Amino acid sequence: MTVLVFLDPGHDDGRVADASQPQLMATDLGATRGDGVFESMLAVDGTPRKEQAHLARLASSAAALDLAVPGADAWGRAVRTALREFAAAEPDRTSAVVKLVATRGVEGAGRATAWVQVAPVPAATLAQRAAGLRVLLLERGYDSTVAQRAPWLLMGAKTLSYAVNMAAIRHAKAAGADDVIFTSSDGKVLEGPTSTVLLARERDGRKTLVTPQLESGILAGTSQAALFAAAKGQGWELGYGPLEPHHLFEADAVWLISSIRLLAPVLSLDGQELRTSAALTAELTDLVDRFV
Amino acid sequence: MTVLVFLDPGHDDGRVADASQPQLMATDLGATRGDGVFESMLAVDGTPRKEQAHLARLASSAAALDLAVPGADAWGRAVRTALREFAAAEPDRTSAVVKLVATRGVEGAGRATAWVQVAPVPAATLAQRAAGLRVLLLERGYDSTVAQRAPWLLMGAKTLSYAVNMAAIRHAKAAGADDVIFTSSDGKVLEGPTSTVLLARERDGRKTLVTPQLESGILAGTSQAALFAAAKGQGWELGYGPLEPHHLFEADAVWLISSIRLLAPVLSLDGQELRTSAALTAELTDLVDRFV
Repeated sequence: MTVLVFLDPGHDDGRVADASQPQLMATDLGATRGDGVFESMLAVDGTPRKEQAHLARLASSAAALDLAVPGADAWGRAVRTALREFAAAEPDRTSAVVKLVATRGVEGAGRATAWVQVAPVPAATLAQRAAGLRVLLLERGYDSTVAQRAPWLLMGAKTLSYAVNMAAIRHAKAAGADDVIFTSSDGKVLEGPTSTVLLARERDGRKTLVTPQLESGILAGTSQAALFAAAKGQGWELGYGPLEPHHLFEADAVWLISSIRLLAPVLSLDGQELRTSAALTAELTDLVDRFV
Repeated sequence: MTVLVFLDPGHDDGRVADASQPQLMATDLGATRGDGVFESMLAVDGTPRKEQAHLARLASSAAALDLAVPGADAWGRAVRTALREFAAAEPDRTSAVVKLVATRGVEGAGRATAWVQVAPVPAATLAQRAAGLRVLLLERGYDSTVAQRAPWLLMGAKTLSYAVNMAAIRHAKAAGADDVIFTSSDGKVLEGPTSTVLLARERDGRKTLVTPQLESGILAGTSQAALFAAAKGQGWELGYGPLEPHHLFEADAVWLISSIRLLAPVLSLDGQELRTSAALTAELTDLVDRFV
């Protein structure tokens, strides 16, 4: 089942709402303009992973949209209420997706609509994590420097305007693939529609974990950041792009990492097989399980 | 007041819903992913303007998103129900905004959520039409050829993912302007966030009306198309870009045209005054009133 808890000034711990009934106004700018922000975090045994990182990114996204959203404390209380309700309803589930959503609210009202949604992790997500991903490279249309000169493009903000991300994934599925890695118009590797790109290189016993540079207008990955910190503690070297597709083809392994699916190996790119490494995937998955 | 009518297989003429109450599921992909399409049309004296053009563009947008939406007949019946309800509630209003929205529906349900919303024309919109617009040129980040090679970018589809359009208008307002004209990364004039660009040239008694070329990835303007047809009948020559900003500075008049605000003169661009023409604005406004 799905649990909904609205952040509501009249309810300190959030207002529990019936997810089987309509709860949003049809005039909410989240629904009519995709004008809002969100986060998805994994909860394990009733505790959200990386909660502070997600709340910090939500605040940063909201600032990019000039959107006043509730503070971290209010979100945290609503999350705890929602997880408690979910545990009562689904006592056998050890994990859950916790979604935080804040929209610009009903047109003219001038107040954000904000809610927490808790639901089971989709089986298809778990299956992709285990099986790995066939990925298409698709152009995102932007060059890798535009984010810095055009803040109104909201690059690096996690907004509700995800139609292009969803269309890219549909395009990949129609072509027999599972997911997408976006490239910039100047040929740089960016990110997945809902994930961060990682690659590993092993040379002379030295292991390096690399991700595209944030300045290329991608979303700062909370899972990538947590994994990088953990990998550094285990002696990995860390690298930040710029990356081009040939770096993916030359790597010893490539993954997409995100908060719910976690670390998923990329098996092929545009139909061409990539190197994979069961050992590296196992090593990093262990770090993900412990630290991400 | 606002009238809502949901398209519903169980209600031939649409299901009237209370717009003062929540009517959308919080799990609707329109609200959580901006995954859907919309149209806004003007109704005058209870009759929608350019209804067929809007329904055709809605169908084209839905096709770009691979989204199955109700057919034109069902939309038409729901629009008539909504306008009848609106007329009963607001008998003194001669015009109204009729919004058609279709989302991908509740996650997993596999059925679009579709509704018609009728509301008064905002006073601020009418004020802008009369007063004219101070406009900023802002980069849209895409080059003018990307739409043709990257259909997953949904250029030319009117989706619910309008966060960037809204951010651009906020950026303009923060800079003391009213609206935006987007440019491509290769320097072409594209469109406004919610409007189409028009310019006029008068040379030796010959009048030419020009708009950016559709192939640059812009939305096909229903108002621009109707006005072009009407102007041609009055002896205007018609032109289609590519346009660059210098063409706007050199024109005898520039307007933004859209379905609700209709024809609004552009007074300045990036703070530099443009030529305006009360005579041309009056002539084209007369055509808009009769034919658009």
